[in-house]
Amino acid sequence: MPETTFATLQRDLSFVLYEVLGVDALCERPAFAQHDRATFDAMLAAAIKLAAGAFGDHAALLDQREPTWDGERVHLIPEVKAALDAFIEGGFLAAGFPEADGGLGLPYSVTQAFMAAFYAANPATAAYPLLTSAAANLLRVFGSEDQRRRYMTPMLEGRFFGTMCLSEPHAGSALADLRTVAHPQPDGRYHIVGDKMWISGGDHDLSESIVHLVLARLPDAPPGVKGISLFIVPKHHIDEAGAVGAPNGVRLIGLNHKMGYRGTVNTALAFGDEAPAVGELVGRPHQGLQAMFHMMNEARVGVGLGATMLGYAGLRYSVEYAKERLQGRHPDQRDPAAPPIPIIEHADVRRMLLAQKAYVEGGLALGLYCAQLIDEADSAPDEAARAQAQTLLAILTPVAKAWPSAYGPQANDLAIQVLGGCGYTRDYPVERLYRDNRLNPIHEGANGIQGIDLLGRKVIMDQGRALSALLAAITETAQGCAAEPTLAPMCEALIAAAGRVSEVSVVVGQAAAQGQIRLALANAHTYLMMVGHTVIAWMWLKQAAVAVDKAPSSPFYAGKLQAARYFFRYELPQTVQQAALLAALDDTTLTADPASL
Amino acid sequence: MPETTFATLQRDLSFVLYEVLGVDALCERPAFAQHDRATFDAMLAAAIKLAAGAFGDHAALLDQREPTWDGERVHLIPEVKAALDAFIEGGFLAAGFPEADGGLGLPYSVTQAFMAAFYAANPATAAYPLLTSAAANLLRVFGSEDQRRRYMTPMLEGRFFGTMCLSEPHAGSALADLRTVAHPQPDGRYHIVGDKMWISGGDHDLSESIVHLVLARLPDAPPGVKGISLFIVPKHHIDEAGAVGAPNGVRLIGLNHKMGYRGTVNTALAFGDEAPAVGELVGRPHQGLQAMFHMMNEARVGVGLGATMLGYAGLRYSVEYAKERLQGRHPDQRDPAAPPIPIIEHADVRRMLLAQKAYVEGGLALGLYCAQLIDEADSAPDEAARAQAQTLLAILTPVAKAWPSAYGPQANDLAIQVLGGCGYTRDYPVERLYRDNRLNPIHEGANGIQGIDLLGRKVIMDQGRALSALLAAITETAQGCAAEPTLAPMCEALIAAAGRVSEVSVVVGQAAAQGQIRLALANAHTYLMMVGHTVIAWMWLKQAAVAVDKAPSSPFYAGKLQAARYFFRYELPQTVQQAALLAALDDTTLTADPASL
Repeated sequence: MPETTFATLQRDLSFVLYEVLGVDALCERPAFAQHDRATFDAMLAAAIKLAAGAFGDHAALLDQREPTWDGERVHLIPEVKAALDAFIEGGFLAAGFPEADGGLGLPYSVTQAFMAAFYAANPATAAYPLLTSAAANLLRVFGSEDQRRRYMTPMLEGRFFGTMCLSEPHAGSALADLRTVAHPQPDGRYHIVGDKMWISGGDHDLSESIVHLVLARLPDAPPGVKGISLFIVPKHHIDEAGAVGAPNGVRLIGLNHKMGYRGTVNTALAFGDEAPAVGELVGRPHQGLQAMFHMMNEARVGVGLGATMLGYAGLRYSVEYAKERLQGRHPDQRDPAAPPIPIIEHADVRRMLLAQKAYVEGGLALGLYCAQLIDEADSAPDEAARAQAQTLLAILTPVAKAWPSAYGPQANDLAIQVLGGCGYTRDYPVERLYRDNRLNPIHEGANGIQGIDLLGRKVIMDQGRALSALLAAITETAQGCAAEPTLAPMCEALIAAAGRVSEVSVVVGQAAAQGQIRLALANAHTYLMMVGHTVIAWMWLKQAAVAVDKAPSSPFYAGKLQAARYFFRYELPQTVQQAALLAALDDTTLTADPASL
Repeated sequence: MPETTFATLQRDLSFVLYEVLGVDALCERPAFAQHDRATFDAMLAAAIKLAAGAFGDHAALLDQREPTWDGERVHLIPEVKAALDAFIEGGFLAAGFPEADGGLGLPYSVTQAFMAAFYAANPATAAYPLLTSAAANLLRVFGSEDQRRRYMTPMLEGRFFGTMCLSEPHAGSALADLRTVAHPQPDGRYHIVGDKMWISGGDHDLSESIVHLVLARLPDAPPGVKGISLFIVPKHHIDEAGAVGAPNGVRLIGLNHKMGYRGTVNTALAFGDEAPAVGELVGRPHQGLQAMFHMMNEARVGVGLGATMLGYAGLRYSVEYAKERLQGRHPDQRDPAAPPIPIIEHADVRRMLLAQKAYVEGGLALGLYCAQLIDEADSAPDEAARAQAQTLLAILTPVAKAWPSAYGPQANDLAIQVLGGCGYTRDYPVERLYRDNRLNPIHEGANGIQGIDLLGRKVIMDQGRALSALLAAITETAQGCAAEPTLAPMCEALIAAAGRVSEVSVVVGQAAAQGQIRLALANAHTYLMMVGHTVIAWMWLKQAAVAVDKAPSSPFYAGKLQAARYFFRYELPQTVQQAALLAALDDTTLTADPASL
């Protein structure tokens, strides 16, 4: 990555965190009273330094030399462990956890801001602590005191890493069909039997042991999602004192060889097929999916932010390249003897850079806004504000996952195009970013699933309360800026877009209420993208409102305003045709005969 | 590839060639009187068999084991030469050349149809004969009799392969800046000195020698594109009798390591840096780019067709997968104990399949239609018809290159998404197709260049005659179908879209005429995509018109109609907002300050 990438990132994170979202105000609350903006900034600066150094330095090498398995051990290049040791040493792994648990008690928005730097530098290596901290957080909320002591604490110390074992070979999107069984044992523990698939971090020697959080069914469980329980199944037996013992019955079947994200070991695991896989129940029987979903908002917002940051890395690289690469002339420069110009002077190159900027800086604002909602839901002083934040988070989560994972890769596609032939070679990072980012529309709920979650669940829940809250928040922002002449056309366009979302939601909701469930949901993905564009336009209006006064004298703020303008002119109008399709309850996809495809 | 892929391809090629385009009528012309539909079909069937066999069989292996260079020789897996030997043996290399030159005299549309099968099976291996036949064709038109005898004939026999050496390290898109120099020698030959970059097929042992067609400047050449000449520079000296002698001064600097298309050796070559690189002038001095551009239409249409066929391969794979993979239930099926359904039953999966179908079968029709225009420009009985075909081909070429190379990769993206996690692994072909196809928007004129070619050259040439001819042809098709009730809404939408193209062309043309060249061309890429969507809608209307009567009783024709419906409902409406942007002469990209990006 060019040196400027991380300096620019620090400025962009600061812009969103403080100037747009004002998260420094959190320090006025008891939960964060020990912090101030200086401690936030110190953590961000340390993260950016480590990301640019030990993480970024081995990103290309890790892609070239992906993890291998010799039948006994998984091998990773040593740079991964060195970077992770520095990460743990720097306090990043536990930073978001309470001080009582050994963390720093930082707000979620700040931890997400520093994670953004690691995603931009090397998401494959960053995945290990990400999974570990997500699993530890699940145990913090749902584990017993003993489980927290024996599993969570070593995870926060970096001694154990964590995984999430949901998918099975026959069931990825359809968790209702999970088959892994947990057989109760006389000592109160369970023997887990079943195959799990796509398990990131499923085997390695980076940590003393691995804590697998496994979804499985008790023998008497009802079918479907209401019969799934959550278990701790460690790679090794962990005794009462927390000491690591003999291997547990978790067998590595093989590694999955992916197009990108190659540095994150991805595994197929067999539980209990040769030796018993002893597990402990977390929380209550049959409540495993609820526990997992408790963490789902954060995980999904995190995936969206990761997709954004891969896009961000490509943007920064292609901007620097476009400033330095000389080629061609303006179309009205007829003299072939005139010197060539930097390609950033060509309007079409600027289009490709502005589009990337609009996608990824819009996505960054959304990711950090959702993180702020998580902070608000936890720490806002009054119950109504906490509930409001929770409601907005619920409806924004599928958008914050799916939209950046659709448009982050599009940004990476444009970065390749800016570099031309060079961008297509493995000598430059942009093709790796493109391959890495292709994972994000797939995992943590494929984007098609996010569409169903948004339209089939979040929009209709509580008589549409979440949608109303979202549209009210959007409208409030727009009305608050409408007096500023530069922003007025954006405000008008955003209010119109919010109106379209509202109208088509009524049409679709009525179809669903009349029993036309399949028809109502047939275009859920289009609905998701329409809401996504509306929400990102909202994020750009928020950013433009901060930038507008300072733009005339500052290239930084002028860039924000130009990207906002790009998004409103080139992107938001797409929602007109999306809304028309939805309002017509178009059944083209639904009625396509499989035999005709 | 699933077995059904090539059976379906044979049916689709037959549909477009005969039912939609009626190319069998070419056999009534003297140039093709020796052929009938039976000979066309035999060639297609033979091509499909070879593509599905020797080509398709090693596509994945060639991607895994890309060509290597040991400092002396380039190594390719032996399956490549075996497949190419069978290709030459089958008469495919020379099939489009006159019988007098050792070919079969097949129409271009038929050769393109059979090449489509090779692109779908293994584009990296197919690139070698493709480059060879393009280079041979250039010599056929511009070479001297001696050059044809010594170079073209061995190429058509498969003894020599060919390359096109245009780009240099500092100049890919900007051919005006080429620096390679050709120094005249007393014997009438030239010593070529300079570096060439991105040369596909630049070195290998697949053939006895390699014929490089090199763009270079004579010492007295004027600057820019008017000072470029074309030279034959063989890898080995070829004597008067055509015998292969000692190596010429063409030195391999290194191989480029690409994200995809790995099986096509891509090289950096140094001409004349250690030993003299002896070359022969082809055609007249300073006329090299015109000669190259004579072949450019075919090369660009071919790139578009290749992008389409990579998309086609992904469509067929993902359709078969979606029929077999069982997961989930319909959203109105509440019983979790009900058996899971094939994922093709889910509306969102059908969306992803229909979109692929709409992109790639629309692209296939366009590619073969352009091939038919090439046949018409060569063999139509009257001069006016030939000129009309040439005019349509000129304006459609940038569209036929850029649109499929933008939407073919989008189809591949959707194929990955249908397969989910599996699609992201190297155990399935769809990720390779996605990586391969990312080349197509870059080479043979990056898509941004195609936008400038369309709007800045083709639309304005001859007072807009080509655009008028295109819009008239579109309107004629639409008016001819308007009486059919199923097609009437499509006809109306297409006429409206053509009208939008016409209107914005006037606005943009006026801006250019008033000297606002940069502003007029600032949104050339948007213009290109708008025209592309309009043209593909036209191709779908042509196909729908054939299918409409037969659709009720045939899944094949019903699929064509459904894909047409999808394109008109989900895709064509995007041109409304593209037209609005163009009509407003939006300057957002043009005015973006580089310092702000």
